[in-house]
This record gives sequence, structure tokens and C-alpha cells, in this order.
Amino acid sequence: LDYQHVQVPFEITLWIMLASLAKIGFHLYNKLPSVVPESCLLIFVGLIMGGIIYGLNDRSPPVMDSDIFFLYLLPPIVLDAGYFMPSRPFFENIGTILLYAVVGTVWNVFGIGFSLYGICQVKAFRLQDVSLLHNLLFGSLIAAVDPVAVLAVFEEIHVNEKLHILVFGESLLNDAVTVVLYKLFRSFCEMPTIKSVDIFAGVGKFFVVGLGGVLVGLSFGFTAAFTTRFTKDIRVIEPLFVFLYSYLSYLTAEMFHLSGIVAIISCAMGMKRYVEANISLKSHTTVKYFMKMWSSVSDTLIFIFLGVSTIGENHEWNWPYICFTVIFCLIWRALGVLVLTFFVNRFHVNTITSKDQFIIAYGGLRGAICFSLVFLLPDFHRKKLFIAATTVVILFTVFIQGMTIRPLVDLLAVKRKMESAPTVGEQIHIRFLDHLLAGIEDISGHWGQYYWKDKLEYFNSKYLQKILLREYDQPKSSIVLLYEKLERKHAMELAQAGQLGHSPAQPSFLSAFLCSSSDRTVIRDQKLEDTLNPAVLDNIQEILARNLYRIRRMGPAYNRHTLPGDSEPAEQAKEILILRHKSL
Amino acid sequence: LDYQHVQVPFEITLWIMLASLAKIGFHLYNKLPSVVPESCLLIFVGLIMGGIIYGLNDRSPPVMDSDIFFLYLLPPIVLDAGYFMPSRPFFENIGTILLYAVVGTVWNVFGIGFSLYGICQVKAFRLQDVSLLHNLLFGSLIAAVDPVAVLAVFEEIHVNEKLHILVFGESLLNDAVTVVLYKLFRSFCEMPTIKSVDIFAGVGKFFVVGLGGVLVGLSFGFTAAFTTRFTKDIRVIEPLFVFLYSYLSYLTAEMFHLSGIVAIISCAMGMKRYVEANISLKSHTTVKYFMKMWSSVSDTLIFIFLGVSTIGENHEWNWPYICFTVIFCLIWRALGVLVLTFFVNRFHVNTITSKDQFIIAYGGLRGAICFSLVFLLPDFHRKKLFIAATTVVILFTVFIQGMTIRPLVDLLAVKRKMESAPTVGEQIHIRFLDHLLAGIEDISGHWGQYYWKDKLEYFNSKYLQKILLREYDQPKSSIVLLYEKLERKHAMELAQAGQLGHSPAQPSFLSAFLCSSSDRTVIRDQKLEDTLNPAVLDNIQEILARNLYRIRRMGPAYNRHTLPGDSEPAEQAKEILILRHKSL
Repeated sequence: LDYQHVQVPFEITLWIMLASLAKIGFHLYNKLPSVVPESCLLIFVGLIMGGIIYGLNDRSPPVMDSDIFFLYLLPPIVLDAGYFMPSRPFFENIGTILLYAVVGTVWNVFGIGFSLYGICQVKAFRLQDVSLLHNLLFGSLIAAVDPVAVLAVFEEIHVNEKLHILVFGESLLNDAVTVVLYKLFRSFCEMPTIKSVDIFAGVGKFFVVGLGGVLVGLSFGFTAAFTTRFTKDIRVIEPLFVFLYSYLSYLTAEMFHLSGIVAIISCAMGMKRYVEANISLKSHTTVKYFMKMWSSVSDTLIFIFLGVSTIGENHEWNWPYICFTVIFCLIWRALGVLVLTFFVNRFHVNTITSKDQFIIAYGGLRGAICFSLVFLLPDFHRKKLFIAATTVVILFTVFIQGMTIRPLVDLLAVKRKMESAPTVGEQIHIRFLDHLLAGIEDISGHWGQYYWKDKLEYFNSKYLQKILLREYDQPKSSIVLLYEKLERKHAMELAQAGQLGHSPAQPSFLSAFLCSSSDRTVIRDQKLEDTLNPAVLDNIQEILARNLYRIRRMGPAYNRHTLPGDSEPAEQAKEILILRHKSL
Repeated sequence: LDYQHVQVPFEITLWIMLASLAKIGFHLYNKLPSVVPESCLLIFVGLIMGGIIYGLNDRSPPVMDSDIFFLYLLPPIVLDAGYFMPSRPFFENIGTILLYAVVGTVWNVFGIGFSLYGICQVKAFRLQDVSLLHNLLFGSLIAAVDPVAVLAVFEEIHVNEKLHILVFGESLLNDAVTVVLYKLFRSFCEMPTIKSVDIFAGVGKFFVVGLGGVLVGLSFGFTAAFTTRFTKDIRVIEPLFVFLYSYLSYLTAEMFHLSGIVAIISCAMGMKRYVEANISLKSHTTVKYFMKMWSSVSDTLIFIFLGVSTIGENHEWNWPYICFTVIFCLIWRALGVLVLTFFVNRFHVNTITSKDQFIIAYGGLRGAICFSLVFLLPDFHRKKLFIAATTVVILFTVFIQGMTIRPLVDLLAVKRKMESAPTVGEQIHIRFLDHLLAGIEDISGHWGQYYWKDKLEYFNSKYLQKILLREYDQPKSSIVLLYEKLERKHAMELAQAGQLGHSPAQPSFLSAFLCSSSDRTVIRDQKLEDTLNPAVLDNIQEILARNLYRIRRMGPAYNRHTLPGDSEPAEQAKEILILRHKSL
């Protein structure tokens, strides 16, 4: 037996296996995951594992290594989050998200830090040796909302899209603030005296860290898109580039002390549309599937390790400090959300309701990032107290808040996510309104989001697409792309039902066309066919087919040098066929 | 700048990136890969990289770590090879493959070892300090044909399936022999005296190492299949299990000093059919795609590292020893193939031609396994000589033999692989013959391969499928599965061509049905439609449809308790539809 030789990969594989089997186990009993969030179950499994290791070895089980967490476990989750980020709601609410992420986090850090320092002044608590700087350092690591924990809980409760993106976007973008404040206070702790210059340098550093992350991410993202232009002959390594470049963007940002999370998100969001257009359909399925798989495994491992690391002798218990930490975390977050939302609502028509505010404040879960940061603290005599307080805050937010948020959402009747994707009609209207608003903003001289979006889209189609896309001819209208996608899906369904030769089966096709376009892997139970009259559908299909054709044909007809043609319907059909055959 | 922190993942990512970009680079110039095998180009890139590192640092570049090779780079390639192994030709020629792999390798080891010992006795060469045991040890590592090198070259020259499986199967299965002989001689080198008991123990050990590997692999494979029964609710982690269990089988086998390669191949071949049936279509695409991607990257990295490791000061040059090593490798392999094939041909009707024998002998490429084994040798004063000889043999076989084998195959007009997959008619006949031969063997009492295949199939359908498959009802006839697959493919093509509503487009469908069933990702240029008359095709389709239905319906009709029904054609069509709808 030669265990030494294979120890490292063997143990890693076993941990991943344990995580995957635990996931299967939970899903065997359907009732369990609907009551208790998966994250809680996984921490529970971790606690048991930690207990067993502690019992057998009689010493503390190994804690989650911060390097492993930041270098290997966190990137897949953030990459997944960035790649599947719904870009429209994200950019529509980017101002609010940044306000929560930057001002909100700074507010929380200083609020928690100063009030804990106040607690430390009470003689009875015997905490007078914890300095203000140490309290602020602790505040900077405990204040940040954790994307992994937020994602794990919010994916299960299906609140409306805006609410989801506000909490989740905040949890992602606050990384830049956390990095700056944490490193600032840590270096202050080691400095003999602090000059006011250092404080201003810290403020400037925030912009460097955040914008630098965006720049690093975008440049890697565009390089990735550019590389996939040349992979036509070796389709099999296409998915690799998506992973390699985004990981490199993360590592490069970390190397320069920039925000790795911001970098990988910019990279994923920047490359997505170009990579999708360049790589083959099967490669894209692999990318999507593997990203989901990887992030799901990382997520599972993080929660299990969180449980394992909780057991042991790393803790120093001090009731007042720990209880007040939990209380201040809740209070300052609630206050911050209230104040910030008050300002946000003054400048927006579509305001954030008080119910939404409550969920935003209540959904501020803490997770593995705090946990890894507290272990990265330099050794000083109260480190174990900070570890204990962090552990309690994480367990409190994940267990108590995570388990009660679903009943609360039900009780408050918070607006839920729409089950069905927008119809084609809605999409056309949204597109129309976008153009209209861009025009109005341009005329009125107001440089709002529609103006910038229009300019960006112009820049994209004029320059970026030509450089980054492999087959850049006429850009396909997105409605034509949608139509193609639905046709493909319909063909698959037909083939599975064995109806290919028999009948065109329009109802199922049209119902799919009219009421769905979402990207999920498992959409099968759409039972709309029965409610719609086949004759009506027939009619709609005809109108649609005619109009789709017209959109395509009338595009070039606006040209000064050509006249709009008026060919026969039969010829039109032939022309479509020829056009499509060419595109193959 | 904090490079230390991210060094390990950053450098790994950069190496993989370099490998992938090199691959893209070769394919940009279409002429290059058709003349020089990719493996040679990659070694060349490695040599340049090594030269640069050597020039900059003024010391030998790092050699490929044997642990990294055996634990991380080799498993993906072997897994890919096992998973996509064409099982029919493999099991049809298993006897010949084992003869080459076991007897042939032993023959080569002792042949090369003893004749090099003879060379060492010549005083003029100044090699008298190299003992017989050291020569045998060297023979045991240099004799084995390398699966990575064989695969890289043979995938490009497209020889016929039997020839390919003979060389490739040998290169995989000789691992058990190599492991045993290498470890045996290595321990003999360290022992003061050798008893004859030890030699017999070595022979016994071979069976333990080989059969143990098969057992470990099969048990992990069946566990994997069993696990995928329960992944219905979390499709997203399905692909993970395929990779985890096969990797665990490899590591477990290595841990117990069994043959890891044999274990992972048994695991992959054992689980394939059950896993395929259990997991979703998209999961399976991901598994296939990722396996190909991973093995392709590993393969690229191995050849680049081989090039990098060649540069440096690890070599001791001795002209006679190195030249005679190359010559003996060629001679003993040629002799071995000749003698063994003589015996094989006496017992087979379908003999191996002399052209095939030449290619088998000539295709015995050496690669990274020898290279890693020679670095794993215990330190002794002639180790650098062995390293130099091994490097020369590898470069000679990969460059000279690898580059000339394609022109030789053309020159000798070796039978090539059939371009098209067997037609449905051929497949039905093969199936029929299998059953017939199994019956004849059973009656005549000859326990040949057909007898065992039939027994295994019976055991599989009676017990294994019930345990390992999720939806085990009536097992689908493989021809029905093929039909479904083609229908799906056809539907995709139709959707891409936009013909879904217009016409059934039977020609393309039927040509696909009649002349292809291969699994490749890129098959698009089948231009058979024009040569076949639509009326004839119509007729064929009708006959096929009728017969397919009959096969299905007549299966249960053989039952003693039911009578063969005789429903109307219209009713039949309806019944098919209902059956298929149920299966959805």
C-alpha cells in the first residue's frame, strides 16, 4: 500500500465525491430541500464530518485554507455568476447597486467598527485591550455581504428580478470595497503612526482596485473572444479558452492587488456574446454545463468546509462581544438600507417598496469570504475571539435568516419572479421603447442610460463585432435568432415524439414560440397547447412567418440604390430557403 | 505585485494556455499538420521553450515531474481512450492483443536487456560497469510501446480498424507487464542476493497486477453506473461522477501497486453503456466533449514537456550504447511481431498480412511513460546514460518513425479505415451472424468468443441492467435507438435549414439513415442525396418503417401467453406514437 504517493489527488477527489453524494442524498427526499436551504444542510454535514475527525484525532480538524478558497473554490462560482448574469436588470440598476455596494459597505464597516469599540469600553466585558483599529479591521471583514451565501439562498426563493439583482449585485461589487478597507486597516494595525495622507491614499486606492479590476477583466474577455475566432478547426478545445482566460483575469487581478471578483465578472460579461457567436453549439452546451457543474461543486465544498472548520479549539468565547456583533450587523445593515433607499427612491420613478427594503436588509447573508479573511488576519492575542464572532455571525445569517427568509417572503407577499419569459410581442415593444427613449435622451441632451446604451451598441456593431466575431456579415436580428432557436428546440421535440414524418404539429411549436425563450436546461412541462385553438394558432403562425420574412427583406430595401421588390409568395419561400442554405 | 501568492495556478494556467495556442497555431496553416505529426511539432515547440529557459537561467530547465505525469496528465488520456474504445474489434482481437502485450513485451525486455549486456562486455566501449540487472531494468522501461505516442500518430493515418486496435490495445495493456517487470528489477537491483522464489513471485505478481486492475476498474465502473441512477433531480453534476469514479479507480489501483491504466480502461468500458442510458443527452454531450478536451490538452502538455525536458545537462553521451539501444529496440520488436504473428495466424482464419505486421512493428513508438520511468530510477552512476538513451529512442521513434509511417502506409497500400460506417443492413447481418455463431458454438461445445459474448449479454440483461439502469422496462433494441438518434440528427439539420414546415425532406434523412451512424461531432458533408432516386428512397423508407415496427411488436409476441396481433397500418402508426409519447 502506497498512500503517500496518491494522497493529494485522492483526498481532493474524495472530498468532491462526498460533496456530490451529499447533494444527491438531499434530493432523494424531495421535502427536505423545500424547507431547509441546501447551504444549511451542507454546513450540517460539515459539522458532523468535523465532529468525527475531531473525535478520532483528538485535535482540531483542518480549517479551510484561505488560499484554497480564494484561488480554487471562489473563481468558479463568480465566473458562473458573471456569465449567467441577466445583463439588462443589472445595468438598469447599476447606480443603486453601486450605492449599496460602496456607500452601504463603508457605512456598515464604520458603523459596526465604532459601535463595537464602544462596547469594548464597558469595563465589565473585559474587552478594553481591543483597539479601535482592530475593531474597524473586524468590521471591514464582517460587513461585506457574501455572494456565495446570497446566491445559495436567493436561487431557491425566486423573488422578483430587481430585488434579486440588487442583493446579488451588491454582494459581488462590494468586493472592491472590502479588499481596500481590509488591507488598509491591516496595514494601519502594523504601522506605528497613521498620517492623513494614508487615509486619502485609501480612498484613491478604491477607484484603482475597482476600475483596475474592470479593465483587467474586459481586456482578458476581449482577448478570449478574439482567440475563439480561430478555433474553427479544433472545436474540441473551444470551451477551454472560456475557462482559461477568465481564470487568468482573476489571478492577474489578485496578483496586482486588484479586485479579482470584479475582474472575473467583467471578463465573463464582456466575452459572453462574442464567444457564444463564435463557438459551436456543442461547445457552448459544454461551457454552460461545465460552468454550472463546477460552481455547484465549489459551492457545496465551501459550505461543507465551513461546517468542518467550525469544530475545534480555534475559538475564544466572549458573550457580550459576540452577541453585540450579531446585533450590530443586523441594525447597521437595516439602517443603511433605509437611508440609502430613501435617496434612491427620490430619483427613481420605479421605487423600492418597504417590503423590498426589508428583504434587502434581511438578505444580507455573510459567508465563506469573511471566514477566510478572518483566518488571514495577522496573529494577535484576540484573533480567536474574532474567529468565534465571525463563525457565529455566519451560522446565524445562514441558518436563522436563510431558513426564515422564505416564509417571510411568503408572508409579506413580496413580488415574485414571473414564471414565463416575456412574449415576442413584449420583447418587440421593449426594443421599440429603448430606441424611443435613446432618441428622446439624445434630443433633450440628457445623458441617461438609454443614451449610453445606444452609443455602446453603435460602437459594438461598428468596431468590436468586426474584430471579435468570426463570421461577421449582416448581424442577425435577435428575433431571427430567437426564431431559429425555437425551431431547433421544436425539431428536437418532434424527433423525440417520433412525429417528424407525420404532421407538422404546429400547436406545440407555436406555444413554444409565443410564450417561452428562456435558456434553462430543463423546460419540458409547458402545457399550453391545450388552451389555444389550433385555428387561431395557424393564423398567428402565418402572420408571423410573413412578418419575419418582411423584416429580413425590408432591411436592405431601405438602401438608396435598390428598390423594394415585390416577388410572389412562392418565390419568397424559395428565397428564404436559399438564404438559409447559404448560411449553413 | 504579489506573484508568490498566485504562482502555482498562474503557471499551470499559462502552460495550458501555451499548449492550446500552439494547437490553434498549427491548424491555422492547413498544410503543416498533414506532413508533420502534431506530436513532433509540439516536441519542437518544447525544445524551443526549453532552449529559451536554458539560455535565460543558465541552468537546466525543470524536467517533467514523474508524479505530475502519472497522477494528472496520463489519466485523462487513458480515460478518453477507454471510453471511446471500439469494443467490438477490441474483444474480437483480445487474444492477439494480450499475446503482443504480455509475451511480446517480455520478449522485448529480455531481448533488449541481454543484448545490451552483450554490448557492455566489449571493452572498447567502456561500459563494463553496467550490470546485467541494470540492463534488464533499462530494457523493462524502454521496451513498452507508449499509448500516448501511438494514439497521436495513429489517429492521423487512419489505418484499418483491426491494425489500429492491435497496436493501440497492446500499448494500453502492456502497462501491467511494464509495472511488474520495472518494479521487480528495481527491487532486485537493491537486493543483495536474488532467490528463485522471487522470480516466481514476479510471475504470480503479473496476474495480480493485471487482474487486480480489471477488478478495481470494474467495481468502480459499476458503482458509477449505479450512482447515476439517482441523479435525475440534479442533472448538472452528472458528468462529474464519470470523471470522479474513473479517476478514483486509477488512484486506487496505483495505491495498491496494481496497473492504473488497466483499471481506468476497465472502469470506462464497464460504465459506458449504463451511464449513457442513465444521464441526460446534454450531460452526455458534456462528458464526451470534456473528455476529448481534457485528453487533448494533456496530450499537448506531455509532448511540450517532453521537448522542454530534453534540453539541459541531464545526459551522459555514449555513442555505442545509445546507437545499439535504438537498433535493438527496432530488431527485437520486429522479430517479436514476426514470431508471435506466425503463431496467431495458425489459429485464425482472418490472418494478419505481412504489410500489417510491418506496420505493427514500425508503429511501436516510445513516449512519455519511458521518460517518466527513467527519471524515477534510483540514483546510480549511470542514470544519466540511461536518460540520454531513453531520450534518443523517444525522439527517434516519434520523429523518424512517426513522420515516415504515413508515406509508408501510402506506399504499401495498407488497408485503410472504411470512411463510412456500416449500413443498417450490414449491422442487421452482423447481429444475425453473432446469434448464429453463438448457437453453433453452444451446440458444438466450443466455448469461443461468441459463446461467452452471448452468456455475458444474457447476464447483463438479466441482472446488471436491472440494478444499474434507472428506467429499466423493455430494453430498447439497438436498431430502434439508432433510428431515434438519426431522427434527432435529421430534425436538427431540418431546423438549421429552415425546412421544418415546408417538406419532409426525405432524401437527406434517408441518406443519413442508410449510410451513417458514426458518433463524430463534425459530419456535415454527406452529399449522397443527389445520387439516390427519391422514389426508390420513398419505397425503402416505407419498408424500413414497416419492419422497424414489426421488430418491436414481434418481440413480446414470441411469448407463450400472447398471440401475435394483426392490426391495421393506421392503427400501427397510432400505437407507435402512443408508445413514444409514453417514453417521453
